[in-house]
Order: sequence, then C-alpha cells, then structure tokens
Amino acid sequence: MRGTVLYGPRDVRFEERAFPKIMKPTDAIVRISAACVCGSDLWPYRGIQPIEQPTPMGHEYCGIVEEVGKDVRTIKAGQFVVGSFATSDNTCAICKHGYQSSCVQREFMSAAQAPFLRVPLADGTLVSTSDMPSKDLIPSLLTLSDVMGTGWFAADAANVKPGSTVGVVGDGAVGLLGVLSAKQMGAERIIAMSRHSTRQKLAREFGATDIVTERGEQGIARIKELTKGIGADSVLECVGTQESMMQAISSTRPGGYVGFVGVPHGVSLDLGQFFYTHVHLHGGPAPVRRYLPELIKLVLDGKINPGKVFDLTLPLDQVAEGYRAMDERRAIKALLHPNGTK
Amino acid sequence: MRGTVLYGPRDVRFEERAFPKIMKPTDAIVRISAACVCGSDLWPYRGIQPIEQPTPMGHEYCGIVEEVGKDVRTIKAGQFVVGSFATSDNTCAICKHGYQSSCVQREFMSAAQAPFLRVPLADGTLVSTSDMPSKDLIPSLLTLSDVMGTGWFAADAANVKPGSTVGVVGDGAVGLLGVLSAKQMGAERIIAMSRHSTRQKLAREFGATDIVTERGEQGIARIKELTKGIGADSVLECVGTQESMMQAISSTRPGGYVGFVGVPHGVSLDLGQFFYTHVHLHGGPAPVRRYLPELIKLVLDGKINPGKVFDLTLPLDQVAEGYRAMDERRAIKALLHPNGTK
Repeated sequence: MRGTVLYGPRDVRFEERAFPKIMKPTDAIVRISAACVCGSDLWPYRGIQPIEQPTPMGHEYCGIVEEVGKDVRTIKAGQFVVGSFATSDNTCAICKHGYQSSCVQREFMSAAQAPFLRVPLADGTLVSTSDMPSKDLIPSLLTLSDVMGTGWFAADAANVKPGSTVGVVGDGAVGLLGVLSAKQMGAERIIAMSRHSTRQKLAREFGATDIVTERGEQGIARIKELTKGIGADSVLECVGTQESMMQAISSTRPGGYVGFVGVPHGVSLDLGQFFYTHVHLHGGPAPVRRYLPELIKLVLDGKINPGKVFDLTLPLDQVAEGYRAMDERRAIKALLHPNGTK
Repeated sequence: MRGTVLYGPRDVRFEERAFPKIMKPTDAIVRISAACVCGSDLWPYRGIQPIEQPTPMGHEYCGIVEEVGKDVRTIKAGQFVVGSFATSDNTCAICKHGYQSSCVQREFMSAAQAPFLRVPLADGTLVSTSDMPSKDLIPSLLTLSDVMGTGWFAADAANVKPGSTVGVVGDGAVGLLGVLSAKQMGAERIIAMSRHSTRQKLAREFGATDIVTERGEQGIARIKELTKGIGADSVLECVGTQESMMQAISSTRPGGYVGFVGVPHGVSLDLGQFFYTHVHLHGGPAPVRRYLPELIKLVLDGKINPGKVFDLTLPLDQVAEGYRAMDERRAIKALLHPNGTK
C-alpha cells in the first residue's frame, strides 16, 4: 500500500509503505474510511518542529476493523470505529480520572494518512458504533478523532456552562469547533476572534454571536467591551503561540478560565504576572477517548455537524495538496479519501 | 502613635506616625486588637522585592471599629471586625464572581502593624462579629485576615474535596494552614513537605497524614509512591519560587489541580512542558473577603484553631524581633500586641 511520509519542511510524499500488521495481541488493523490533515501537522510541515527522520503522518481516523489481535475483547472485525489520536488502555488510574491522553501506556498515533492503520490498545482506544453509519456522517465522525474532541476539551477545560460568555482565540478548525462545543454546552455569548470571512461565516453558523477582528491590546479591549468591562468567563486558546496565549489570558475575567489546546511552541508564562490575573489555566492533549461515546451519539443523532470544517476533499494520493492548502490558509481543513486514490 | 516602617533590607523601625483619619466617606478607623508579620513581608525585608521609599508595614488585622465615614452603612463603631488584606467594594462584577481581591477598587492594605488603621471601603472589606469575641479567639480570628484565608484559597483553588489526596509544598504558616484547610474540606490523605520538626508536628496536629522530607526529584518520587504512582489530586503551592512551583506541578496527577498562593518571585512556566502534565493551575491573592463569614463562624464555633501558627507573641514595639525570628525561621509566625507596647 501507499501512505503519507514527511521528509522535511514542505516535503510530503505519498509512497510505498509496508502493510500494517498485528504486532501485539491488543492491536487492531483498521481500514481507513477517511483521514485528514491536522493543524498540528503543520508545525513539522513548516519546519517549526523539526523532524529527525522521514515520518509517517496522520493521527485522525475512522474506519472499519479489518483484524484484531487475540487479546482484543470488545472491538471486532467488521465494526465501524472512531479512535483517539492518543492510545489508551482506558483502565489505568489516570484513564479512570478521565485523562486517557496521559494514559500510562499512551502512544501518539501516526501513519493514519494511509489506507490501513495499526491501532495499539484497540479496546481502550477505539469506540465502535452499533450500526454502519451512513456515508454523509463519515466527515463528522472523523472529526471526533481529534479536532472536534480537542475543541470540546478546550470548552470543557475552560469550564463553559449554560449562560457563559466565551471567547475563542484561533479560527482554525479547532477554534471553530470550540465555538460549536461552547454552543452545545449552552454558552450564551460566544465571541470568535477571526479576520477571515469564510471562517467568520462558519463561526456564526456554529454559534458565534460576535466576531472580533482586532488583535493584541485592541482585541482585548473589544472583548472587555462585550463582557461588562471585565472579560469573558471562559476563553479557548486554540493556537499555541505566545501572542495567542497572552490574548486568551488577558481576555478572561478574574476568576475565569482559559482552556488551552493549541500545542504551545516557545510559549512561556510569567507567573508573577499570571498570579494577579486570577485566571484558571487548564489544557493539554485532549482526552478524546473520554468524550467519544457522547460525541458519537451527538453526531449520529444529528445534533452536531462538525464535518462542516472540511472545505477541501481530496483523494488520499493528493495529500500533499491538502498540506499546501492548509499551510496557505486556502482551506480550513482537508479530508482525505483512500477510495479516490489511484 | 507609633507604627512599623521598613526602611530597607532588615531595617524595620517602630517610629512616630500620624494618627490615621477618615479620608473618604467609605473609610473606617480600626483600633487594632492584634496584628502580625506575614511571610510576604519577608520578601521586601530580605531585599528580594526592593522598596523605593520607607514603607509602612502590615496587612493582617482585626480589632474594634473606632470611627466610620459618613457613607459606611453596615459597619459601626464599637463592632469587632476582621478585614481582608485587600480592600473591596464587594459589589462590582468581579466581586460578585467571588474574586474580591481583584475588585475594580482594590487597594492592598498596609500600615496594620500599628495601634490604629484606616480601612478603605469598610462595608466591602470588613466583616463584623455579632458579639465581642473572647480574648483567646483573637489569634485565630486574626489569621483569617490573610494567612488562613490564603491557605483556604490554596486548598479551594486546588479543588480539594472529600476523599482527595493532597500535597502541600511549603511549611510556612500558609502551608500549615493549607493542611488545616484541606483537612476541614474532607481530604483523606494530606502529605506535608517539611524538614523542620516543629513544623512537622504542627502539620500533623492540623491533619497531615504523611510527612515528606525529600525535595526535588526524590520528593516527587516519594509523593508518587504515596499516591498510586500517579501523583496527588491536589497540590498547594505555598512558597513562590521556581523550585517550589516545579515541585508542586510534578507532584500532581494528570488532571489534578495546583492551587498556588505563594507570591511568585522570578517564576516562569514553560507551557510546552506544562501542556503535557494535564494539570489545572489556579491561584493569586486570596479572595479572603469571600471566605470571611464562613471562616469566622468556624473559629467562633471552635471547629478550627488556626491561631496555633503563632509561636511567638511580642508587644508591637518589638516588631523588628518578629521579623528577625521569622527570617531566621526561629518562629513560624509572630503575633504583635499593641496593648503590650510601652
């Protein structure tokens, strides 16, 4: 089979790879129904997070179980599954607290931008649906693997509750799905920070009540104007830069919450200053596995349609164009179909 | 009258000062029943936090109202009151969220190490008792002004709940009262980090179930041993150095909480590392005013006796010895009595 490998900055290749096989008795092999390019894939793509060797790419996936190892109990061949970008046994003390993405056996997935994928710890990482979902639901189910689960965690980590005022920093797919998550959790006012009309439109569609185009001090002032002069109850930081983190913290009211899910790159926090903000800070790699059952139900019941973030669909062998389009912000997020591959 | 003024590193003077008077119609003048030296007073005392001019010291106080301004409604002359180290109107949007120490009208108190004190925003800053408390309760009531309120906030910010496992970094008065607070909130296991036998003893008395004398990597390993290998649910950071903050974060389980109340001095947090800890972080100047009614009741009902942290009592004119004893760690905390002053 052929799969996606990053060789260096802006050098994505779709090339011959070994067919994945069961290596441990807890593994499963999944035939990928759809995969996609993640915002976090752009860090190594841009060379900001250097790679040491050619690296198989992709960690968002859903599909049909092809084969399972002999110790796999709940997942069976033929089932449709969605899995987390981080593997988990779902039984350790950390998993029991709901932080499966810090599981003692965690591995970060890769090589999902391919027709077949090996998933370790299948019982603890994958969630199956009772029936085969209709094709039109595949994009939304795919998002649950990372991008939607991450937006959901951002809102949850930022303590969004019914009636909350919420700010969202970042208009990438995670930020937009953070808007959708905040809406679903009952937020009354959702302020999306965006300068890009396509993204503003989708933010509105997902539930944003206000759009702020200003950044820095002006952006903070604008958010305060909209929130009784004190800042938002909850702010979702969905970028991962020093500037975006400061924007998020400064836009939050004393006693409010920042949920941060943008993987921080070179971000440091002066705690002597942070102390006087009285802001709660929580984030990290989203414990997607915790949310999967609930989010799958919301998608199957037609309550949420996070698949709308895909504004570019490509056959898998054109994966390099997916990276380019996202890098150049021509696309919010690119969905990849193995079926269309030549 | 005479009051306490810091002139520079280790230069504390008790000298003639103007008698405080009502300056705004919302002020009150309080005749101090007892004051004390705060751990945070040691930062400027040691020259770590430089002062620009001779500075009147002291921000922990309780006493009897001498006089009130014409706009003061609820506080009356003759009442016994405890006040927060931070003034608050207790009516602004931030106060309504329970963060009175970030009130839009906040001032940090000073000049409380004196026989009389002007308290701005008396209605929003002071809480009166219905009767005159007995003398033996004065030390405990005094602690509510800052040190006990701060320990309580540390435990609250660290989300201590019935059954929690709790770590406490710092065996100063705040850390010790953090132990007492965690106990009061129902923590099952309370691990105090201390190398000092007097402080270990008081920690045990306040409810510590375990004492860890190791620091750094060994201290972290010891706490993990005591907490199913994953770290404590809640850790109270009561020091304010880089080392103590790292100790606290590394001793917390993924998904756990750090409550930090030690005023950070030169502490910075690498969010790229913090991201993967999955720790919740919250702290700041304690919103003592929020807690005062509840804590006063606990003291008056004999449920808590935080005044035990005072292991040195001096007449106010010997305040310099109080600073020395705390600086040299001969005393945990020094109580100052205006009545004993010559």
